[in-house]
Amino acid sequence: MTTGESVIRRMYMYGLDRAKVVGSENVFDYSLGNPSVAPPSAYTDALVDLVQNENPLLVHGYSPNVGMPQAREAIVKDLNKRYHMGYTLKNIFMSVSAAGALAHAFRAVVTPGEGQNIITFAPFFPEYIHYVGGSGAELKVVPADFSSFQINFEAFESMIDEKTVAVLINSPNNPSGIVYSTQTIERLANILRAKSAELGHVIYLISDEPYREIVFEGTDAPFVAKFYDNTIVCYSYSKSMSVPGARTGYCLINTEAEGYEDFVAVCVQISRCIGHNCPPTLMQLAVARDAGATSDLAVYETNMNILYDELTSLGFEMVKPGGTFYMLPKALEADATAFCEKAKQFDLILVPGDSFGAPGYFRIAYCVPTEKVRRSLMAFRKLAALYKH
Amino acid sequence: MTTGESVIRRMYMYGLDRAKVVGSENVFDYSLGNPSVAPPSAYTDALVDLVQNENPLLVHGYSPNVGMPQAREAIVKDLNKRYHMGYTLKNIFMSVSAAGALAHAFRAVVTPGEGQNIITFAPFFPEYIHYVGGSGAELKVVPADFSSFQINFEAFESMIDEKTVAVLINSPNNPSGIVYSTQTIERLANILRAKSAELGHVIYLISDEPYREIVFEGTDAPFVAKFYDNTIVCYSYSKSMSVPGARTGYCLINTEAEGYEDFVAVCVQISRCIGHNCPPTLMQLAVARDAGATSDLAVYETNMNILYDELTSLGFEMVKPGGTFYMLPKALEADATAFCEKAKQFDLILVPGDSFGAPGYFRIAYCVPTEKVRRSLMAFRKLAALYKH
Repeated sequence: MTTGESVIRRMYMYGLDRAKVVGSENVFDYSLGNPSVAPPSAYTDALVDLVQNENPLLVHGYSPNVGMPQAREAIVKDLNKRYHMGYTLKNIFMSVSAAGALAHAFRAVVTPGEGQNIITFAPFFPEYIHYVGGSGAELKVVPADFSSFQINFEAFESMIDEKTVAVLINSPNNPSGIVYSTQTIERLANILRAKSAELGHVIYLISDEPYREIVFEGTDAPFVAKFYDNTIVCYSYSKSMSVPGARTGYCLINTEAEGYEDFVAVCVQISRCIGHNCPPTLMQLAVARDAGATSDLAVYETNMNILYDELTSLGFEMVKPGGTFYMLPKALEADATAFCEKAKQFDLILVPGDSFGAPGYFRIAYCVPTEKVRRSLMAFRKLAALYKH
Repeated sequence: MTTGESVIRRMYMYGLDRAKVVGSENVFDYSLGNPSVAPPSAYTDALVDLVQNENPLLVHGYSPNVGMPQAREAIVKDLNKRYHMGYTLKNIFMSVSAAGALAHAFRAVVTPGEGQNIITFAPFFPEYIHYVGGSGAELKVVPADFSSFQINFEAFESMIDEKTVAVLINSPNNPSGIVYSTQTIERLANILRAKSAELGHVIYLISDEPYREIVFEGTDAPFVAKFYDNTIVCYSYSKSMSVPGARTGYCLINTEAEGYEDFVAVCVQISRCIGHNCPPTLMQLAVARDAGATSDLAVYETNMNILYDELTSLGFEMVKPGGTFYMLPKALEADATAFCEKAKQFDLILVPGDSFGAPGYFRIAYCVPTEKVRRSLMAFRKLAALYKH
């Protein structure tokens, strides 16, 4: 399997080169999942206020290994309010964004050298292969249910074995934009409970939720941790606050999870071995000022609707996204790479779905200005026309 | 061997508890290496200007995996000017502070599962045990030369074996404050060249230099990378700019080093496996504005001189520090832990040297206000008096 990064990056670099020739306004770059709206002023105002008015030895000083208490307190308070949970500081460990959170979660549940595996579901973020591999386990990928991009449960059940220590989900999903329904999460939790009992060891559910706040109207978007005790949530503010450069997120374990008592201490030990020492203090303090703040995320839904309406009318098949800023339509030929190459002639930068476990599909990352989305429709029309004769 | 962190943290936590009783102004807390002076205004002004006046999608957006080009450019330019080097962007990889830099350097030179080792010299920062262990190698510690805290070369040469892939140095040194002289570095480089030739593989020199900018008057403080081709420098702005919370540093390899061509790409691959994805963008851009800026570091030399004069006059034996904000005097009894316990009755918080590979010694982290250093002298006098009868 190839890695997604190289394909995404290659398309992105092509887009940059092309922009030098025709101007960036004329390149419809749908390759990168980089937020296109500004961070909330609650966050940026907090940064400035902290730097100008607070004690510099606090603001620029070391964070405790577990994270700043102000941030941990504000985050659990926000989660408790929104999801009616009872989290305390003992549930949360601050991490260098979602990548750091996942690095800790995987290492917390994996014993290296024992041939263990973690299962995830296609379509999936291909960096997971490296993230899981680095923890000493193998990532096993359940083939996609292309009809809904929910979970292919039959295939999943047959792939769980005695070496399975965790299941990794990403809902709302990169690259499909689909949100797992309450029914999906309940069925998944039931299987995990039954299999844990059968195998005699806990199978953790690791829920990677950077897109949790980007959910479109009418979408059923359950808070995963409510449905399964042995859940570890991995979160980042990269998408909800449009601050991927802030490298700030967290790991959160349920109070009912096995190993809850030691979880934060275990994360501290893991940090020492991987050179991870907290997210930046300033960003933690800024998040703490308003942990529930988000960017103006409505633009993503606007963009999705414009693209969904146009592309489906052009004959593209796709499952309508329930959140994120991605969609994963079926290409107009079997070879999605060839399809994305053809798209380049209209300065449309698309990413083939192969590395996401979705061959024949392509990803559109529609985190771009809406006016650009509108201008890109003509390019999609021309691309579709290539396949009409 | 116990870990340093727990001892340092335990003493620090004791100091906090004690401060609640007698007031923090009356606790002479010399436990933590947390900078006590404000960051340079070049850095803090840059933070505010970037947040208020630059494109938020740049300032808060993803950094490339290798780091922001602005930061890499500014840093190599500064190093080239100060040390007459010829570094380019191909030499440098931005990291989440020194811990992140070391995590990459170790993984770049170690092949896991082959029983390799990395050698360092006591006294040493005890977290190195975990940092090296996490990379799949073992840390071997050369006993200290207590007469000078330079290198015990005889012991060192006898410890190099066919499994040695790197030597790790930390000069200016935590915990001794000693700076390796040009003579020491030259002799070390000669041995490494000879042993590399003899063993038929490169032994890298990994130079952990967060205290490089804190050097006292008259100290011979060579730039290590000039003396040995196969050097990897690990750096952090935590101490020079007083921003440990900014989590910003870098790995730098010499152009003449084996593996130079692939080094930055290798670091990117390593990042993917350990959940490390660049230091925060905002901090990289702020550093880029003036990569050579430092806090007003003179206070540390002032503090050192006050303590050195008083403690030596009280009969403490020590090697005079050449930099950092640490010193490592000999305790007044063989058991440094017992000594540090006795110091508590005078509200002096000191850290026993055992975990640093210096049993019988204690560390003073004199990154505290000078007026407090002066007030602490009476406490040291009372402590010394306990041993005078």
